[in-house]
Amino acid sequence: MSELRQNFATKEWVVIATERARRPEEMVRHRERKQVSSLVATCPFCPGNEKLTPPEILRSPAITDVPWHVRVIPNKFAALSRDVEPTRTVHRSCRSVNGFGVHDVIIETPDHAQVLALMPDSYVEEILHIYKTRYNEISLDPRISHITIFKNHGIDAGTSLEHPHSQMIATPVTSLQVRERFQHALRYFDDFGECMFCQMLEEELQQQVRIITVSEHFVALEPYASPAPFCTHIYPRRHMASFGDVGAVEMTDLAYMLRSMLAKLYHGLADPDFNFTIRSAAAESAGVKYFHWYLSVIPRLTRVAGFELGSGMFINTVLPEAAAEFLRKVDVERLNGTAVAATS
Amino acid sequence: MSELRQNFATKEWVVIATERARRPEEMVRHRERKQVSSLVATCPFCPGNEKLTPPEILRSPAITDVPWHVRVIPNKFAALSRDVEPTRTVHRSCRSVNGFGVHDVIIETPDHAQVLALMPDSYVEEILHIYKTRYNEISLDPRISHITIFKNHGIDAGTSLEHPHSQMIATPVTSLQVRERFQHALRYFDDFGECMFCQMLEEELQQQVRIITVSEHFVALEPYASPAPFCTHIYPRRHMASFGDVGAVEMTDLAYMLRSMLAKLYHGLADPDFNFTIRSAAAESAGVKYFHWYLSVIPRLTRVAGFELGSGMFINTVLPEAAAEFLRKVDVERLNGTAVAATS
Repeated sequence: MSELRQNFATKEWVVIATERARRPEEMVRHRERKQVSSLVATCPFCPGNEKLTPPEILRSPAITDVPWHVRVIPNKFAALSRDVEPTRTVHRSCRSVNGFGVHDVIIETPDHAQVLALMPDSYVEEILHIYKTRYNEISLDPRISHITIFKNHGIDAGTSLEHPHSQMIATPVTSLQVRERFQHALRYFDDFGECMFCQMLEEELQQQVRIITVSEHFVALEPYASPAPFCTHIYPRRHMASFGDVGAVEMTDLAYMLRSMLAKLYHGLADPDFNFTIRSAAAESAGVKYFHWYLSVIPRLTRVAGFELGSGMFINTVLPEAAAEFLRKVDVERLNGTAVAATS
Repeated sequence: MSELRQNFATKEWVVIATERARRPEEMVRHRERKQVSSLVATCPFCPGNEKLTPPEILRSPAITDVPWHVRVIPNKFAALSRDVEPTRTVHRSCRSVNGFGVHDVIIETPDHAQVLALMPDSYVEEILHIYKTRYNEISLDPRISHITIFKNHGIDAGTSLEHPHSQMIATPVTSLQVRERFQHALRYFDDFGECMFCQMLEEELQQQVRIITVSEHFVALEPYASPAPFCTHIYPRRHMASFGDVGAVEMTDLAYMLRSMLAKLYHGLADPDFNFTIRSAAAESAGVKYFHWYLSVIPRLTRVAGFELGSGMFINTVLPEAAAEFLRKVDVERLNGTAVAATS
């Protein structure tokens, strides 16, 4: 029978619609991915075309006379601009702030045909390190209120350029959703004297049913009230409100965790379109005891329809416990070996 | 320059990204619609196949010996079931209610190839009347907390069956989003002694720039902080919290308004995929002075990507004022005449 579940942290309800349920295997959609080469002459993100992008902000390795692995550039079609001062206008019901903000693109690799799921962990670590560096740099600007780090992979996930890249958008306001999630977490802390995410992780580690992988510093799991099939969260095991506070040893572990979760989705679900995003406390709240940052991966296997738009409530047709069991069984190390062998 | 706008009623921020802006005309996507016939032998919603659906709840006209125009049936693959009693379970961080609820399908016409945008107003009125009848019937059940009326048109809007239909899902809980919107409206009422929607409508009618059409009883407009291109709201002009309270004369006018807005989108944007939903106060709050029901039409011209998922903030690439101007100019009466002539 179907079940309505409430997300403990966000208070959002989801319908786990087991009447329409699909076994995890049924969600595999073998889609035609265009064969692409590693270097595309017309791609602005490919090596040799560096002059086609706006001036570079950062690169890794930092030495300029070796080929780059990762580059950070301003988005050429930025949603927000760093060249204005944020000014708020309130005129009765019309309230606005002009378009101040930061919109970076992180080019993840020189290789046009590469995917994060198949990269060596050390390359993924370089990308995550760049995220952290830019996150902390942008956080220093007092005009910035919130930063969203995200990646779009595939058409259904909203990507427009196929060269592997992620993005960072910093806004002069905090969204209602982010603000309210903070308030829920604060209220829980005031009531119970502990971080609600730490509490939830402790319970999940006891129950085991929604856990996918546990490493020294991180836990990957399917959330109890997961809004979509195979939505996967990665949480740091120690309490930490801001992604900007990840330590060096932890970053190595996070790279392993992220890469292996993406590889499980890649192999298990036939390279699905997906987004990922990092939900972190803003700089001004980096030290708070009540919030806990996490990384959320959302495969885009279903479409948001009228019910979701009209109620704000999602329908998930795969039981999170079944999704976790399915992903636990995907043997990434063996399959990555096969994938590398097949392409070499 | 881009601008961040805050929705006065919901407190949600959107980025109106004029740097990436598109002129309204650029959003037209001529998609291949399959030619379909008016009667499809394998369609469970077509006349002659009534026995393939679960037992009918309601039909219009109510007389059984004339052909039906509209039928209401339980969804065969319902997300929620009316055959259980709602029971809440709270076990530490895991909170749930079993899958009690109502999930109706409203078959809008016997004609498999018809679209609401091209129907006579009187047919649309019959459908809206059925919505109201079922809405008020379901509202009588004290186990129901909230009802969502919605329609999915086209693949990108999440539809799975092409025969024109809409749906109604009633849940034993109220979603966080709905609850919070009520609270914002209540707080405004407590501060200013008036309905924030009535106040906003008064301002919009003065400013005119986002108004599409005004009829005797309704206003159609593009919201100031519109989350998506051509998102269109229809509000009753008199204060009314619940859709269930629409009067007979108002219903005739609403049918005209909805049909003509859908026709403007159909002709102006080449039959885009869209959802619509009715946002109404629940039965227990039908008489409140602080909430105002409305119908929201959301054309699905863009995709939700990682930024939206990670921040809860939307990016809209069409200025609402430009969308309103574009839709004002689409001459539905002339074009509907052409469409009818072309198909006759």
